[in-house]
Amino acid sequence: MIELYHAGLTTCSKKVRLCLREKNLSYVSRFVDLTKFEQHRPEYLALNPNGQVPTLVHDGVVVIESTVINEYLDDAFPDVPLRPSSAGERAHMRVWAKLSDEAMAASLIFALASQTGFGDAVRKLGVAEPEGKLEQFPEPERRNAIRKAVSGNGYNESELEEARGRAGFIVERAEQALAHGPYLAAASYSLADINMIPYIDRFKHRILQGRITARSHPRLSEWYERVMSRPAVQESFAASVETSAAA
Amino acid sequence: MIELYHAGLTTCSKKVRLCLREKNLSYVSRFVDLTKFEQHRPEYLALNPNGQVPTLVHDGVVVIESTVINEYLDDAFPDVPLRPSSAGERAHMRVWAKLSDEAMAASLIFALASQTGFGDAVRKLGVAEPEGKLEQFPEPERRNAIRKAVSGNGYNESELEEARGRAGFIVERAEQALAHGPYLAAASYSLADINMIPYIDRFKHRILQGRITARSHPRLSEWYERVMSRPAVQESFAASVETSAAA
Repeated sequence: MIELYHAGLTTCSKKVRLCLREKNLSYVSRFVDLTKFEQHRPEYLALNPNGQVPTLVHDGVVVIESTVINEYLDDAFPDVPLRPSSAGERAHMRVWAKLSDEAMAASLIFALASQTGFGDAVRKLGVAEPEGKLEQFPEPERRNAIRKAVSGNGYNESELEEARGRAGFIVERAEQALAHGPYLAAASYSLADINMIPYIDRFKHRILQGRITARSHPRLSEWYERVMSRPAVQESFAASVETSAAA
Repeated sequence: MIELYHAGLTTCSKKVRLCLREKNLSYVSRFVDLTKFEQHRPEYLALNPNGQVPTLVHDGVVVIESTVINEYLDDAFPDVPLRPSSAGERAHMRVWAKLSDEAMAASLIFALASQTGFGDAVRKLGVAEPEGKLEQFPEPERRNAIRKAVSGNGYNESELEEARGRAGFIVERAEQALAHGPYLAAASYSLADINMIPYIDRFKHRILQGRITARSHPRLSEWYERVMSRPAVQESFAASVETSAAA
């Protein structure tokens, strides 16, 4: 049995929900409402001491970190392989997996700067309980980002531009990589693509809105159309019973 | 044939030099002098567009990123396996590999704040050529850290304390993990240990000097003695013909 604790349409949760669908694995969906800070409940922290989503529980094996979960799924369920077969292409895939973790850091800043969702919930928390509750974020990188977001004026334009710069770097690398073939790490669709899809989507529509076009990034734009048309991507990006607190 | 482009006794280079020794793989050592910014030479950027060390070249396959290189070595040379055999323990190993990448970020701040070596070279560069040369750092995270280090007073005490906090978090996680056995991810020595050894060593002797003791962290202190006594660790941590520009 597979259980996935996740936050629906957030980027890291989409990475794993997408991977599960590509591998045709059914699972029990456990929605964690980040705006209610359910990720800090003791029973969840017992599974994931970092207080982050997603967390996978497979026959008693607990796996954290979305990038690690996706490689775990390919180790544990080798049918429908999503890693290239050669060692060299696997290495390329893992460089992209690492870039998706770095994309997360840029993406988080914009989520925290947002006036809705998690960013809004965090700022209300900062006003209501400037101390104490913030200390409930166990992971220091995340806690520092959140403390910054709730303090004073939050992120300033120069800091947002720095985050856009990091996102832009990844986008340029993707455009270059796609000169070698239709997918990021190899001739075949792999975890490199799966791990990046939620971030490229976020960059295209929010963080770098208007800066990723068929003219500026022809190969990435074609890749985006190609991957977004996959049924597994459409399903994991759509609102459904599993992507809200009512689930 | 294996060639390793590396910077000797820097943390990321030690990770890979250590892994090669544990697997009894011989290689051609290519020393890259970071204080002379040899990592920005066109012929090196052709191998590693990020302008970072290490880079592995194995029979024409180019692999970047120390964490990725170490998994590549285990994929390409499965004798002397350094990954646990079960999918769950491999996932634990990869969480530690990711933590070693995060440890790098904290470690870099202290390297840049140092009055010697790379930190000193970078500050002299900033004084001599405040623009231009800094833009030669292709990777934005690194470039931002370096711009920060050379601008004004560099990192202030509160920023250094934040970096110490990140290092301390990893140290506490290691102490907890070692409650389950003698090694970080599994009953056996693995890439989890290999990737962390250079950082725990750096934390113990520099960044968190005096804060990691047999009394404060008994399990981590025992682990440190255990791993540091390995011949491969002693060899890769010692100055040798391959760890200086004269090589």
